[in-house]
Amino acid sequence: MLFRAEITIKLKNGMLDPEAATIKNALKHLGYECRSVKQAAIFKLEFEADSRQNATDVAEGMCRRLLANPIIHDYDIELV
Amino acid sequence: MLFRAEITIKLKNGMLDPEAATIKNALKHLGYECRSVKQAAIFKLEFEADSRQNATDVAEGMCRRLLANPIIHDYDIELV
Repeated sequence: MLFRAEITIKLKNGMLDPEAATIKNALKHLGYECRSVKQAAIFKLEFEADSRQNATDVAEGMCRRLLANPIIHDYDIELV
Repeated sequence: MLFRAEITIKLKNGMLDPEAATIKNALKHLGYECRSVKQAAIFKLEFEADSRQNATDVAEGMCRRLLANPIIHDYDIELV
């Protein structure tokens, strides 16, 4: 069965995010004052799996082994 | 009034995405065969604006002037 997973990967709370800080600063220079800027990455994957549970396990594995760094990232898997 | 905007930025359809292709390939080497891999960036911004319409305009401006490259990216603004 073909599954679509939407995986959101973001830095854990409290982690420094220099890229977001740079963007916030650049926006300020353009006249856009933001109280906060956060960023995250989304991966949309299509893959075959036997069941919904199996698909979740596969997506978990992909996150743990490649997509996210569990030390600094939180990830969220949504099967569509 | 404080607004929260969630801005999703992704490559336009048909644009080559070498980063996603590399991830797809790396997943394959780990034993995860994906039919397709797409990625997008999300920015979560908090900023002050007079009205909802004004907040949308501000977010549009930030996308056009900094966050997205309108030649290769599509963006989607959602006020929360």
